[in-house]
Amino acid sequence: MRLLTSCELTFDIPEPTPFILMLRPRSRARQWVASERYTLVPGTPVTEFTDTYGNLCQRLLAPPGIFSVHTAAEVVLAYGVEPGVGAPFVEIRHLPDSVLCYLLPSRYCESERFGQMAGEITTDRLLGYNQVAAIEAWLRAEIRYEAGSSEFPVSAVEVNERGWGVCRDFAHLGMALCRSLCIPARMVVGFLYDLQPMDFHAWFEAFVGGRWYTFDATQPESKDGYVVLGYGRDAADVAVYNQFGPAVFPTTQHVRVERLQDESVWPTLQ
Amino acid sequence: MRLLTSCELTFDIPEPTPFILMLRPRSRARQWVASERYTLVPGTPVTEFTDTYGNLCQRLLAPPGIFSVHTAAEVVLAYGVEPGVGAPFVEIRHLPDSVLCYLLPSRYCESERFGQMAGEITTDRLLGYNQVAAIEAWLRAEIRYEAGSSEFPVSAVEVNERGWGVCRDFAHLGMALCRSLCIPARMVVGFLYDLQPMDFHAWFEAFVGGRWYTFDATQPESKDGYVVLGYGRDAADVAVYNQFGPAVFPTTQHVRVERLQDESVWPTLQ
Amino acid sequence: MRLLTSCELTFDIPEPTPFILMLRPRSRARQWVASERYTLVPGTPVTEFTDTYGNLCQRLLAPPGIFSVHTAAEVVLAYGVEPGVGAPFVEIRHLPDSVLCYLLPSRYCESERFGQMAGEITTDRLLGYNQVAAIEAWLRAEIRYEAGSSEFPVSAVEVNERGWGVCRDFAHLGMALCRSLCIPARMVVGFLYDLQPMDFHAWFEAFVGGRWYTFDATQPESKDGYVVLGYGRDAADVAVYNQFGPAVFPTTQHVRVERLQDESVWPTLQ
Amino acid sequence: MRLLTSCELTFDIPEPTPFILMLRPRSRARQWVASERYTLVPGTPVTEFTDTYGNLCQRLLAPPGIFSVHTAAEVVLAYGVEPGVGAPFVEIRHLPDSVLCYLLPSRYCESERFGQMAGEITTDRLLGYNQVAAIEAWLRAEIRYEAGSSEFPVSAVEVNERGWGVCRDFAHLGMALCRSLCIPARMVVGFLYDLQPMDFHAWFEAFVGGRWYTFDATQPESKDGYVVLGYGRDAADVAVYNQFGPAVFPTTQHVRVERLQDESVWPTLQ
Repeated sequence: MRLLTSCELTFDIPEPTPFILMLRPRSRARQWVASERYTLVPGTPVTEFTDTYGNLCQRLLAPPGIFSVHTAAEVVLAYGVEPGVGAPFVEIRHLPDSVLCYLLPSRYCESERFGQMAGEITTDRLLGYNQVAAIEAWLRAEIRYEAGSSEFPVSAVEVNERGWGVCRDFAHLGMALCRSLCIPARMVVGFLYDLQPMDFHAWFEAFVGGRWYTFDATQPESKDGYVVLGYGRDAADVAVYNQFGPAVFPTTQHVRVERLQDESVWPTLQ
Repeated sequence: MRLLTSCELTFDIPEPTPFILMLRPRSRARQWVASERYTLVPGTPVTEFTDTYGNLCQRLLAPPGIFSVHTAAEVVLAYGVEPGVGAPFVEIRHLPDSVLCYLLPSRYCESERFGQMAGEITTDRLLGYNQVAAIEAWLRAEIRYEAGSSEFPVSAVEVNERGWGVCRDFAHLGMALCRSLCIPARMVVGFLYDLQPMDFHAWFEAFVGGRWYTFDATQPESKDGYVVLGYGRDAADVAVYNQFGPAVFPTTQHVRVERLQDESVWPTLQ
Repeated sequence: MRLLTSCELTFDIPEPTPFILMLRPRSRARQWVASERYTLVPGTPVTEFTDTYGNLCQRLLAPPGIFSVHTAAEVVLAYGVEPGVGAPFVEIRHLPDSVLCYLLPSRYCESERFGQMAGEITTDRLLGYNQVAAIEAWLRAEIRYEAGSSEFPVSAVEVNERGWGVCRDFAHLGMALCRSLCIPARMVVGFLYDLQPMDFHAWFEAFVGGRWYTFDATQPESKDGYVVLGYGRDAADVAVYNQFGPAVFPTTQHVRVERLQDESVWPTLQ
Repeated sequence: MRLLTSCELTFDIPEPTPFILMLRPRSRARQWVASERYTLVPGTPVTEFTDTYGNLCQRLLAPPGIFSVHTAAEVVLAYGVEPGVGAPFVEIRHLPDSVLCYLLPSRYCESERFGQMAGEITTDRLLGYNQVAAIEAWLRAEIRYEAGSSEFPVSAVEVNERGWGVCRDFAHLGMALCRSLCIPARMVVGFLYDLQPMDFHAWFEAFVGGRWYTFDATQPESKDGYVVLGYGRDAADVAVYNQFGPAVFPTTQHVRVERLQDESVWPTLQ
């Protein structure tokens, strides 16, 4: 599948404001960045670094006035949703070292408080993928999707109490439940083809059967078309824009994902 | 200053239980590990890895029955508390990349909720070290030290509401206040010479004037004698023992720090 | 300065052949990748990883037949050559840890054999930048540029003996001389605007006065227009294409660097 | 197997001299550091860092006069030599990213010049472990062990020409042959129980069948008792002491490895 993702963010900056952006996708096992464009208007000095999760992050000082960021990328994805049903739970002693940090509670995933609830949701499920699938199904059934964000992001405990949320809230609650069962879970931000309404998106991955699988309770079923911008423990780690000092919200935020045709050259990835 | 730190932890393990321990100190700029010993009884296979913060972590599967961990280290510290008064605030665009993650909110430091409060506590202070010193003074004055831990660690918001806590609570609230002012702050766990009562200890460091400075509001004043076991964003990252599965608490936990005499060969570190 | 770099490599592959390519530039302190394109024909699964030097590397298995790689990037560079004359030698104990590996001998830089020669070339020079400038001047005067590569790359000792070489040979000898003086030196591969004849290029950087400076003895004088593809200890680390198994040489290799006009929005980087 | 390793190095330092030491073993999959001691006389400020291969390195400035380094470690090793016969060659596209750097030529392993020779030595061998075993057998048969080091270490090409060498020379030639067959090979320095005559030791590991196996052509057969101090591409990366400036050789170098008895608590590692 060949997608063209793009976004345009515009801010009205009152005073020089430091930003960290996470808007440059990287090529990964099943995601190839065939081309990309990254434009700042007005042109602004920017540096890029790799954070501890391997994400490319752009640092800059936004100048006062109208400041906009345009990015676009042509991304080739491997086709098909990888079937994971039955993938077994990995005992902690066999987890790769690099995965262990995704077992810990984090800012928006108070996983140490969900042990009993996760046990109930996953009763009688085969340990591993099927537990995560039960969590995903529970989220679809019990949490109501409702657009509109709070002043601050809310945490899994709060999402569970109020019973509704946006995509990142579903991910936070899903990850907190997984981690309470000793299943590593990490947050992903990026784009999703055909998302309604179109915007940046967040979902999560769980590590079972020796690899990461995608879960997204905001969608009715598994689907193709996820483009990754960043991974992290939760929304605190993977803000697509992180701005310091007095809050500045985008005056416009346009996100688009189009499907391109010339994809025949790309075989299905293994 | 030459110290001998030691700890003995004993657990009564009902079933094979995965542990991650953070009990091996590393040599650092002002801390030299002259000798150490790390004993598991019964002898148990263990592997060691370095986490994303650079801490040495020991992974093992504790066997059923009485399981104990004994560690001891002879550590040479540079003398003297480094004076930081007046060390300036580092603008975000000038912070090293590796320090940026300590600006973010984390599990127990909901820094995004403390902006106003931090502003009030530090009114009229010179930006940088003096702000952190004001936060430390405020913690000493307003938060009551009270031994005894909750079932779960509590977060900075909760500590602030209830007005009392243990060492890690002081650190969490201090870090949340610092980060809300865009001052990087990280948690430290380890040992402190002459701590009353003796136990593992937690404190925090803030990054001002281009380096990390130590702050500890549980102590009446700055002092020598901190031995670092681990750094992280908060207690979720730097548990000296992290155990997965049904909770198992130590049946004994003995910590000691003694001062050794033969220290004359060691010059004051710069 | 805004440049459009591009390359086209074509291979006639006899049997499936593993490649590691280093053809995707990264944004860096003085180099911003505004857009890029990376095309493989036929389309081929590829993964990307970051090597220990921070370079983005593309791994793939080239299919039998005509296989070509096209890349293009629009890169904005900070203007101006940074003046380094007089930048002091950094004593080894003050070098950052991450720079130490560039003091060691490496495959094509037998630095342990150049101590006396380096001392003679740099007699009476101020320690630091001026020593490296003397080495660069010596290379310009004593080593003859001659296109045409050997079957194998040759090392600094061999370049010195024969007295001629291509760009990577100048870099290898320059680095070996620097390292023998305890000045960290690293190899750079990439593009250079206005290079005659146009091709990929190699040069080196030396660490003096607390930062890296560019040196290139194949050019008559310091100039703008260097676009970095990769850093390493020498040519063994930074092959723009590294292929395993029976040797396959490109049947075509076209490299271009054009200057673009719309650069006014970009201020001089600091 | 429980070993007590120790070394004592003494230098007569004419002027303040920077050193990088690699004398602190780390706990690893089959190696547990139960205790260790690291003493510098006179006491000298020292910092420790982790290099790109994961080795702990100690940096210091040795003061003029007699300077000595004493280290000792009690190390528990997993019993038994792991049988590797038949372990298959790993195709390059399936190698972990972290292993790829061990395919490249390095300072003392000009692997690009050994393709034909390696093919002849391993004719008719099953690809993988058996090729490396053939290389090891060839080294035992064709290279003569002869104590005494050159002023400079010599490279695989030189070792092959002269037909004799010390342990590191065997390792260099073995690795160059492996890499020329696209088998990753890395150098190891450390201690070997029962080595005759006792000293620091060097050997190599090859990556086949998905893991690293130990090879040591200086010994008549596979044996237990290897304690790792450091890994690297060759001797340039893993000097147990690396000293900068005018050469200073140790006036005494004592290495000891004793077997300890109280090992019953330690089960065979998996």
